[in-house]
Amino acid sequence: MSPVKVGLLGFGVVGGGTFKVLAQNAEEIARRAGRKIEVVAVGALNVDTVRELVGDNVLVTSDAYEVVRHPEVDIVVELIGGDTIARELVNEAIARGKHVVTANKALLAKHGNEIFAAAHDKGLMVAFEAAVAGGIPIVKAIREGLTANRIQWLAGIINGTTNYILSEMRFKGLSFNEALADAQRLGYAEADPTFDIEGVDAAHKLSLLASLAFGIPVQFSKVHIEGITGLAKEDIAHAERLGYRIKLLGITRRCDQGIELRVHPTLIPVERLLSSVEGAMNAVQVNGDMVGPTLYYGQGAGELPTASAVVADLVDVTRLLLADPGHRVPHLAFQPGAMADTPILSMDDVISSYYLRLRVDDRPGVLADLARVLANHQISIGSMFQEPHGPADADIIFLSHEAREGNVNRALEEIQALPFVKSHVTRLRVESLL
Amino acid sequence: MSPVKVGLLGFGVVGGGTFKVLAQNAEEIARRAGRKIEVVAVGALNVDTVRELVGDNVLVTSDAYEVVRHPEVDIVVELIGGDTIARELVNEAIARGKHVVTANKALLAKHGNEIFAAAHDKGLMVAFEAAVAGGIPIVKAIREGLTANRIQWLAGIINGTTNYILSEMRFKGLSFNEALADAQRLGYAEADPTFDIEGVDAAHKLSLLASLAFGIPVQFSKVHIEGITGLAKEDIAHAERLGYRIKLLGITRRCDQGIELRVHPTLIPVERLLSSVEGAMNAVQVNGDMVGPTLYYGQGAGELPTASAVVADLVDVTRLLLADPGHRVPHLAFQPGAMADTPILSMDDVISSYYLRLRVDDRPGVLADLARVLANHQISIGSMFQEPHGPADADIIFLSHEAREGNVNRALEEIQALPFVKSHVTRLRVESLL
Repeated sequence: MSPVKVGLLGFGVVGGGTFKVLAQNAEEIARRAGRKIEVVAVGALNVDTVRELVGDNVLVTSDAYEVVRHPEVDIVVELIGGDTIARELVNEAIARGKHVVTANKALLAKHGNEIFAAAHDKGLMVAFEAAVAGGIPIVKAIREGLTANRIQWLAGIINGTTNYILSEMRFKGLSFNEALADAQRLGYAEADPTFDIEGVDAAHKLSLLASLAFGIPVQFSKVHIEGITGLAKEDIAHAERLGYRIKLLGITRRCDQGIELRVHPTLIPVERLLSSVEGAMNAVQVNGDMVGPTLYYGQGAGELPTASAVVADLVDVTRLLLADPGHRVPHLAFQPGAMADTPILSMDDVISSYYLRLRVDDRPGVLADLARVLANHQISIGSMFQEPHGPADADIIFLSHEAREGNVNRALEEIQALPFVKSHVTRLRVESLL
Repeated sequence: MSPVKVGLLGFGVVGGGTFKVLAQNAEEIARRAGRKIEVVAVGALNVDTVRELVGDNVLVTSDAYEVVRHPEVDIVVELIGGDTIARELVNEAIARGKHVVTANKALLAKHGNEIFAAAHDKGLMVAFEAAVAGGIPIVKAIREGLTANRIQWLAGIINGTTNYILSEMRFKGLSFNEALADAQRLGYAEADPTFDIEGVDAAHKLSLLASLAFGIPVQFSKVHIEGITGLAKEDIAHAERLGYRIKLLGITRRCDQGIELRVHPTLIPVERLLSSVEGAMNAVQVNGDMVGPTLYYGQGAGELPTASAVVADLVDVTRLLLADPGHRVPHLAFQPGAMADTPILSMDDVISSYYLRLRVDDRPGVLADLARVLANHQISIGSMFQEPHGPADADIIFLSHEAREGNVNRALEEIQALPFVKSHVTRLRVESLL
C-alpha cells in the first residue's frame, strides 16, 4: 500500500521528536501499521533550520495553512499548542477532510466538544493520546481497555513538573521556591511555570480523562483547581510522620449526586503505588466496577515519550484510515449520541478526609475549643499531634475522618477567627485511594 | 443497530463472570460499543444450573458444537481452557467464519501461530486480552499503545498465585510450603498448583507477550522456566538485607544475538515499582526505545477482572465487526507478513547478575578458594556477607556483577565439588530493571 502522508504543524520539542521517531523506527512502525507513514510537509517558523533537519523531500513552510491545505496530506499533526492559532488550524484541517492528531490538551480541554463534533460530522478522527500523560497509553486504556466497566473513579499524577518539585521537596527537605528554582535550572520547569504549578495543566488533562471515563462532555471550566505553590516543607514532613505522601492529584469520581472533578495537593498513604511515583514520572490509577484497581505509569512529558504517543495515534489512524466511520472507536470513548449530562459536583459537596495544620498559643483549653468547633460541624478527628514552636506557641496537626467539604470550610472560618489561632490554617485533602 | 450475538463456551468462574458483566453493565457497554452485546447460547456441562442463571431466552446446551454452529452467533467466546477440546472448538469456530474471543493462554501459547494464521486467512479476529494478566489491558497497550517503539524488554509479574505466595513468605516469614498451604486454603492457589508454582502459566503468558513485543512467532517451547518451589525463606530475608525483593518474573529482552525468553525467581531492587506489587496483583513493565519505561498494574485473575478483559475484547470485535480485515489491528501486533524469525537465546548466553548462597566449613582459606573459582570464570563479586551457622559452619551469600550464565554454571559445578562446600549452591538471578 502507498504511504500515509502526514503534515506536521510545529517543529519544537514534540514536533522534532515526532519526526525523529518516524524516521528512526520507520521499519518497525511499517511492520505494525502495514504501510509507511511519511511526513510530507512541515509548518514551522524557523524554516531554514527545519529544512536542514528534514531534507529536501519535505515541504517546509512558515505558512501553516499551506500544510493544512496540502492536497497530499492525509493526517494533520498539530503540535503548536495553545488555543488560538492551533484552534483555527485544527478547524481548517477538519473542514478540509483531514484527520487530526494532536498533543494539545489546552485546546481540547476548552474546545474539544466543538472539535470532536465537527470531526464526527465529517467522519474524521481526532486522536489525542499525547495530550494526557505523555507516552502512557492512558487514553487507549480507558477508551478501549476498560470498556466492560462502569468507571468508579480515577486519580492521576498527570503533571511531571509538580511531581518533580514535590519529590525534591521530600527527598532534600527543600522549600517550594528552592525546589522550583532547581526544577527550572534542570529543565523540568519552564521559565514561566504558572500553568504547571497552579494545577491548570493537570486540570486540562483531567477534564479529558473524566470525559473518557464517564461519557460526559469535556468541562474544563468546572474543574476545581488548587496548585502546589502554598505547600510548606513542614506539611510534607508531617504527612510522612502520619504515613502519607503529598502528590498533586487530578481526581474524578462518580457519586450519587454527580461527578467530582478536582485538582489539588493530596495526602495519600505510603502503601499505595501512586505514592511511589517520583520525579517527573506520571501515573494514573483507574478503578472500574469489574476490573477493580488498575494503574498506568510512564514518562508524562519530553521529546521522545510524547512523540511515542503521537506516533501511536498515527498508527491507529493509519490502520483505520479507510474504514467507514461507524467502525472506529468514538473520540470520547462513548458514542456521541450516548453522552450523559451528569452534573459536576460543587466542591462543597465533596466528601474527603482532611489534614489541618495551625499554630496556636500553647495554653490549656486550646485543644478543647478547636475540637468543639470541629465537632459542631460533624468533623471527627482520626489522629492528631502537637509540636512546640518557640516558648509560647505550638503547631497542631489534625487528620480528620471523612467530612463534607462545605462543613470543613465553615469550621475553618470559625477556627481562623479564634483569638488563640496565630497562623493561617493549612488545609489539605487526604485520599485513601481504595 | 441490531445486537451482536455471542456464544459462550464454558460457564465456570470466567464464563459466569462474563455473563454477569454483560448483564450488569449492558447499558454502559452499549453506550460505548454503539450496539448491544447479547449472549444467545451457552455451552456448559451443568445445563440445569446455567439455565437457571441465564434465563429462558438463551440456548443452554451440553454440546459445545451446537454453540459454535449456531447460525446467529457472531462471536464465540472460548472459556473452557486447556488445549484439547478448546482447540477443536476454536478451529471449528474459525472454519465456520466466527470471530473468537478467548482467555486461554495455554492454547494460544502452544497453538497460537496456527490459530492466528487460520483466522487471518478467513478475515477473522481472535482476541485474547484476558489470556495475559487478567483485567490489565496489556495486550492492547503493547499492540496499539506502543507502536512507535522498538520494544527493548519487558518484565512482568504475570502469575498472581506465585506473587501471593512470595508476598506471604516475606511478610510472615513463612516457608514456601506453609505459604502455599495458606494460598490453597484462601483460594489463591488450586488443589494442584503445579502450573502456577512451576512457572508454566507465566511462561504461557510470556510467550504471547514476547510475540507482541518483538513480532516473532509464539514460541512457548523455547521459554526457559524455573518456578518458585525451591525458594527458601532465608533467600527472601537475605535479599531484603541486600536491598532486593524476590519476584517470579517473566522476562523477554532483545539483544544483539537474539531474544531472551525466561521465567524464574528474580531479585529486583526495592526502589523499583515492580517490587511493590504485592499479593495476587499483576504488573508488567515494558521499556520502549522512545517511550522509556512504562508499567501496567491490576488484578491478573479472578471472575470479574478477567471478564472485564473478555468483554473489552467483545467491544473491540463489535466495533470492528463489519470493517474489512485490512483495517484491523494485527493479532500479534505486527502484520503477518512482517514477522521476524529472530533466534531465541540459549540460557547459557544470557547476561545477568547472580545471587549465590552456600554453606561451607567455617575455616580459613574457604573464601579465597571460592573467589578464585569465580574469578577464573570471569565472575566478579559486587557484595558478599557471611553468617555463622552452628559452631563449625557458615553461610556465604554473594551478589555478582553481570556475568554470562554459561560461565556461572561452570563455576557452580566446580564450587559444588569443593570439599568444604556442605550444601547445594542456591543460584538466583538479579535484574536491575533499568
